[in-house]
Amino acid sequence: MKVLIMTADNFEDSELLVPYYRFKEESIQVDVVSLKTGKITGKHGYEVAVDKTFDEVNADDYDLLLLPGGKAPAELRKERSALEIVRHFFAGNKPVAAICHGPQILISAGLLHGRRATCYKAVAAEMKGAGAEYEDRELIVDGNLVTSRQPSDIPVFMKEIMKILRG
Amino acid sequence: MKVLIMTADNFEDSELLVPYYRFKEESIQVDVVSLKTGKITGKHGYEVAVDKTFDEVNADDYDLLLLPGGKAPAELRKERSALEIVRHFFAGNKPVAAICHGPQILISAGLLHGRRATCYKAVAAEMKGAGAEYEDRELIVDGNLVTSRQPSDIPVFMKEIMKILRG
Repeated sequence: MKVLIMTADNFEDSELLVPYYRFKEESIQVDVVSLKTGKITGKHGYEVAVDKTFDEVNADDYDLLLLPGGKAPAELRKERSALEIVRHFFAGNKPVAAICHGPQILISAGLLHGRRATCYKAVAAEMKGAGAEYEDRELIVDGNLVTSRQPSDIPVFMKEIMKILRG
Repeated sequence: MKVLIMTADNFEDSELLVPYYRFKEESIQVDVVSLKTGKITGKHGYEVAVDKTFDEVNADDYDLLLLPGGKAPAELRKERSALEIVRHFFAGNKPVAAICHGPQILISAGLLHGRRATCYKAVAAEMKGAGAEYEDRELIVDGNLVTSRQPSDIPVFMKEIMKILRG
């Protein structure tokens, strides 16, 4: 079992750290993929080691993709190689879990048209503009896509993710 | 199932937030007890609502006590009512889980003499001075007492706590 976390500097710390430690509690392998190797730093100052750059990732190696929020998605959505990885997960109907600003990456990848999803309230307008059926709910599961709004939704978000990983 | 988290301002954010969300994922009730009601703020800026003050807590209502680290324990160890709650857990042989600087509260409560335990490296000298059998390991379980050293130990710390709560 292996999870890929796609993020960058200025990630929302709790939206990365809580899942990161949760996966490790279950002995699930986790790789953090970002723009460069070394360390990235969250909005609240936590540092996380990057395991791979986008070019080094083979999406087929992973069972689930996690997109935390913060300001990181605004950077990642400009990266063609990041968008290609996300599209690969969708093409294979593999689970993608995005929270807060994380769905911005899915919007830029053109993957939300006609899909039910949620996100941080400041992202709602552009999510609707991308053709998604936006709802203001703590968790929305639509096929392979799992979305939540904010840190306080983490418990239900993680409960769903763990259910998916347990098969 | 109900857990008590004892902390104060300048808690180590990840050592409170990761367990907090983990318990909620499992629908385990969590109360945060502190010096005053309202909100407390972690070292990294996360705010958490306080549910009860020390005088409002009945230790018998809880199945496990969690002591996160940060600078909070240095304040709490001076509070007689906080130490009484901790002693009540030990007297009933009920689970107490402390991480990082959290064990400072147990030291001040006089509960570590002859007990196997670990803590953040800067706390090791005073832990030994309190008569504990200190070891530099990610997790030590000694009867009702569960201790870990730092945020990177959270996965094994939480795995043990969840095992205890599942009975």
